[in-house]
Amino acid sequence: MMTQFINQKENTVTEAIDGLIQTSGGTLARLDGYPHIRVVVRSDWDKSKVALVSGGGSGHEPAHAGFVGEGLLTAAVCGDVFASPSIDSVLAGILSVTGPAGCLLIVKNYTGDRLNFGLAAERARAFGLKVNMIIVNDDIALPDLPQPRGVAGTLFVHKIAGAMAQAGASLAEITKAAERVIAGTKSLGMSLDTCTVPGSPKENRIPQGKAELGLGIHGEAGVEQIEYENAKQALAAVTDKMAPLMGTAPHVVLLNNLGGTTVLEMSVLANELAQSSIGKNVKFIIGPAAMMTSLDMRGFSISVYPATAEEIALLQAPCASSAWPGCVEMKPVTVFKLPDGLTPIAPIPSEHDATAKFLTKCCNILIESEVDLNALDAQSGDGDTGSTLAGAARALIDALDRMPLADHTQLYRAIGQELSQTMGGSLGVLLAIFFTAAGDAASSGLPMVATLQEGLKRVQQIGGAQVGDRTMLDALQPALDELENGLRPAADAARKGAIHTSTIVHAKAGRASYISPEQLQGHIDPGAEAVARLFEQLSA
Amino acid sequence: MMTQFINQKENTVTEAIDGLIQTSGGTLARLDGYPHIRVVVRSDWDKSKVALVSGGGSGHEPAHAGFVGEGLLTAAVCGDVFASPSIDSVLAGILSVTGPAGCLLIVKNYTGDRLNFGLAAERARAFGLKVNMIIVNDDIALPDLPQPRGVAGTLFVHKIAGAMAQAGASLAEITKAAERVIAGTKSLGMSLDTCTVPGSPKENRIPQGKAELGLGIHGEAGVEQIEYENAKQALAAVTDKMAPLMGTAPHVVLLNNLGGTTVLEMSVLANELAQSSIGKNVKFIIGPAAMMTSLDMRGFSISVYPATAEEIALLQAPCASSAWPGCVEMKPVTVFKLPDGLTPIAPIPSEHDATAKFLTKCCNILIESEVDLNALDAQSGDGDTGSTLAGAARALIDALDRMPLADHTQLYRAIGQELSQTMGGSLGVLLAIFFTAAGDAASSGLPMVATLQEGLKRVQQIGGAQVGDRTMLDALQPALDELENGLRPAADAARKGAIHTSTIVHAKAGRASYISPEQLQGHIDPGAEAVARLFEQLSA
Repeated sequence: MMTQFINQKENTVTEAIDGLIQTSGGTLARLDGYPHIRVVVRSDWDKSKVALVSGGGSGHEPAHAGFVGEGLLTAAVCGDVFASPSIDSVLAGILSVTGPAGCLLIVKNYTGDRLNFGLAAERARAFGLKVNMIIVNDDIALPDLPQPRGVAGTLFVHKIAGAMAQAGASLAEITKAAERVIAGTKSLGMSLDTCTVPGSPKENRIPQGKAELGLGIHGEAGVEQIEYENAKQALAAVTDKMAPLMGTAPHVVLLNNLGGTTVLEMSVLANELAQSSIGKNVKFIIGPAAMMTSLDMRGFSISVYPATAEEIALLQAPCASSAWPGCVEMKPVTVFKLPDGLTPIAPIPSEHDATAKFLTKCCNILIESEVDLNALDAQSGDGDTGSTLAGAARALIDALDRMPLADHTQLYRAIGQELSQTMGGSLGVLLAIFFTAAGDAASSGLPMVATLQEGLKRVQQIGGAQVGDRTMLDALQPALDELENGLRPAADAARKGAIHTSTIVHAKAGRASYISPEQLQGHIDPGAEAVARLFEQLSA
Repeated sequence: MMTQFINQKENTVTEAIDGLIQTSGGTLARLDGYPHIRVVVRSDWDKSKVALVSGGGSGHEPAHAGFVGEGLLTAAVCGDVFASPSIDSVLAGILSVTGPAGCLLIVKNYTGDRLNFGLAAERARAFGLKVNMIIVNDDIALPDLPQPRGVAGTLFVHKIAGAMAQAGASLAEITKAAERVIAGTKSLGMSLDTCTVPGSPKENRIPQGKAELGLGIHGEAGVEQIEYENAKQALAAVTDKMAPLMGTAPHVVLLNNLGGTTVLEMSVLANELAQSSIGKNVKFIIGPAAMMTSLDMRGFSISVYPATAEEIALLQAPCASSAWPGCVEMKPVTVFKLPDGLTPIAPIPSEHDATAKFLTKCCNILIESEVDLNALDAQSGDGDTGSTLAGAARALIDALDRMPLADHTQLYRAIGQELSQTMGGSLGVLLAIFFTAAGDAASSGLPMVATLQEGLKRVQQIGGAQVGDRTMLDALQPALDELENGLRPAADAARKGAIHTSTIVHAKAGRASYISPEQLQGHIDPGAEAVARLFEQLSA
C-alpha cells in the first residue's frame, strides 16, 4: 500500500478540514459536528444574502471547502473520500447559513449527492426556508447516458453564482443563471494513471503507455483506453470530442489538473490547448490549476462554457479563495527582442610590447606546467587542471593581437571574455569573473594591485570558497596581499600558501570536498600550485 | 519509462513557458532567444524601479517564471530541467529589464547558478549597470556544509524584495533586506518518493514505507532515510530539527508541496504543523501550496523566518501572480455550534381512526408482498426490495401511536422522517423525499391528489428518473394521474404501467441500468409491482 501523508484514514477528512481552516487566516470556520458532520462555512457570514452550499465526497480538493469564501461558496458539506455526505450534515450546512434570502444547493450529478442534498433540502423547506437545488451534469464522456456526471465544470457555477450572490442577486436570479451555465457547460477528462484512495491499495487499471479518456473524478473507469503518444495527441483526443459541440462561439475554458500532473506538464498542455482544434474558441482561460481533483490522479480535464460578457465579469470578480486561479483572457505569446550586448563588442586592438611580453610569459609558464598540474589534479580530481589552464593559455596567446593591450580596463575585460569562451568548467567561469571584476575596478581608477584584489573578492563571493578551503585562493590571496612589496615576496607567500594546501584534508569547497582525507594528505592543490609557479617564475 | 504530458523532451521547458505566458492574461512575455535563451519577463515593465531577476533550473514550477509579475519578480531565467541557465541567458535577462535603479539577482545556492549568474552580473556591470547578487542558502539538511542549498525559503526573498521594489525602494535597501531574510531563513524537506525527470526513468531510491529527510529539490538523495509511520511523525521529523533553531520567536512559515502530494494530504500536514513542536512559533503561514516543487515529488518542505511586522506587511502586499498563495495569520479552528433543527421536533401525536386504519392497511399490503417482491427484485437487483419495503412498513405500524394522524401536513412530514430513519438505500431517501415534499405542498393548502403529485415531481427532479426508466414511477405516475377519478381507475393505471416495465429492457436509471436486456425481459420492476399491488388492494 502506498505511503501517504495521513494518520488514521478515518480521520483524514476532518484533519484536512482543520488544516484548511487554520491556514485560512480566519476566513473559514466549521460546525461542531465532528466526526459525522463536516461542514466548512464562511466565518463572517451574516445571512444577509443568498447562501450557496455545495459539497459532496472529499478527495477533490481544493473543491469544495477550498472554494468557500467571499464571492464564492458560503458553505461546503464534506463527505468521506469519494462518498456523499449524510443528509444530516447537508441539512446542518443549509440551516447554519440560510437567511431570509434563501439558499442554493449546487450538487454534482451523482445519485448519492442528489438524494442526500435533495432530502436535506426538503427538510430545510419544512422549516420555512427557501431552498433551491441545481444539479451539475457537465461530463460529456458518455453521450448517451441520461445522467451525465458533474465534474470540474461545477466551478463555473460556483464562481458565477458566488459573484452574483455577493452582488446581492435574488435566489431566483441566481438559480436561473446557474441553470443557464449548467446547460452550456461541457467537460471531459483524461488520465495516465488511476488515483490512490487513502489507506487503500492502488488499482492498476491503466497500463503503462495507455491513457484513459472520459473518466470521472472518483477513480471510476473511463470510457475508453487509448494509446498514449504525447501531450499534443492526448490533448487533441479531448478537444476533438469537444470541438463539434462548441461551434464557432467564443468560450471560457477551465483547464483542471486532476491532482498528480506536474505544473510543468500542465503548462505544456496549456500551450497545446492554444494550438488545438478548439484553440480559436478559447477566449478566456481559468487555470491551469488543480481545482476539482481526483486525489493524485495524473490527468487533466477541460471544461468549456460560452460565457457572455456579463458572465465573464462575474468569473473575473474578486473572491476570497486562494484556490481560485482567476479568469484571464487567453493571449498569444508576446516576444520581446533580445537586448543588445549579448554579443560582446570586440575591443579595439592596441599595442603595448611590455604587456604582450608579460602576458606571453605568464601563458608559457602555465603551458609548461601542464603535465605536472595534471598529475597533481589526478590526486583529487579528474586530472585535467593542467590541460584546462594550458589550453586557455594557448588560446590567449593566439588572441594577443586582437587584444586592447594599451588599456588596462579593456584588457582585463577582454581576457575575462576570452577565458569564458575558451575555458570550460567552474575554473573558467571563476577566472572570467576575476578578470571582468578587475576590469570594473580598473575603470574606476584603482591601482593595479587593488584591482586584482577586487577581482579576488568577487571570486570569493560568487564561488563561495575562502582561504583554507584548499583551492587556488590559498596561494592567490597571500600573493596579492604581498604584491605591493614586490613579486618576490608575493611568490614566497604563494608558495607558502600552496604548500599549506597539502595539509588541508577536509576540503570544504570544490571537487576535493568529495575526496577522502587519506587521498588528499600530502598533495598540493593543483590550482594553488599553478598560482605559486606563476609568481615564482615571474619573479625569477 | 513513465508516460508524462510532454512532447519532445528537449522542448518541454519552452513549451511550458509558452503555455504559462498564454494563460497569464497578457502580464507575461518572453525574450526572443529560443531555444537557448528562455527568459520570462513582465510585459508591462518600464525599468522605472529596481528589477528583480531570479531563475535556475526548470522543474520547480511554479518557481520561478510563475512568480514573475507586479510585486514579485521582474524576470525569470529558465534552464533545462534541473540545470542552470547559461551565462548568456542570464545576461539577456539582466540587460532586458535593468534600468537606472539597478537589478538584484536572487540566486539559489548551487554552484552552476552561482557561477553563471555571477559572471553574467560581471558582464552586465561592464555595461555600466548596477547589479547586485544575493545567494539564498536556507537548507538546514546538512548542518556542517559551508554551502547550504537554496530551496523554498527563496520565496520569502522573492516576495519581500518584490514588494519593496514595487514600493520604490533602492537597490541598496532591497539588497540589505534580502540579505537579512536569507540570514534568518531555514528550510527542510521530506519526501516519500523520488521525482520523475521528463523523459528519464524514475530512480527508485526510496523504498516503500520509508521517507527521506533533508532532500534537495533536484532529486538528489536526502541526508537520511527514516521509517515512515504517518503524517504526524513525518512532520515531527522535520519540525523537531527546526525547533531548536527557532527559539521562542514568532515566525512566518511556508508550507510547500514538493509537487506530488495531494491537496488533501497537504491540509493534513498543515493541521499537524499547528500541533507540532514549532506550532507555537507559527504566527503567519504561506500555503500549503506548490511553490518550489521538484517535479512530481511526493513530499513537502517547511521554511521558517522570524519576520518583523514590516516584513509581514511586505509578504501580505498584493502581487500579480496567481501562484502566490498569500500570507495569512495562523489561527486556531473556529467552531460554530450546530444549528437547531437537526433533531426533528417530534410531532404532537393526534388520533384519527380512519387514517390509522388506512395506513395500517397500506403497510400490511407491503408486508404481505415481501416474498414476491424479493423474488422479482432478484431478477434485476440484489433481491431485497420486498424486505426493504416490508421492514419500513412494520416500523411505520409500530410508530402509528406517535403520529400526528389528524394533521395531514404534519403526518406526511412525520412519515418522511420515519422512512428516512428506518429505510435504507436510495428507495428510502426517495420515499422520504416524496412524503416530505407532499407535506410541504399540503401546508400550502393543496388538495390531496395534488400534494402527492408535488411529491412525485420532486422525486423525479432529485432522483432523475422519468416514466419509462423502469422504476416505481412507471406505476406511480399513471396511478396519481387517475386518482381524481377514484381508486379503481388508479389501480388499473398502476397495473398497466407495472406490466409495461416488463418490456423495458434498456433501463436508464437505477440498478437495472447495469443489467443485460435478456435478464430484464419479461420481469416487472419490483417497485412498480409494489405500487400496483398497493392500489389494487386498496381499491378491492
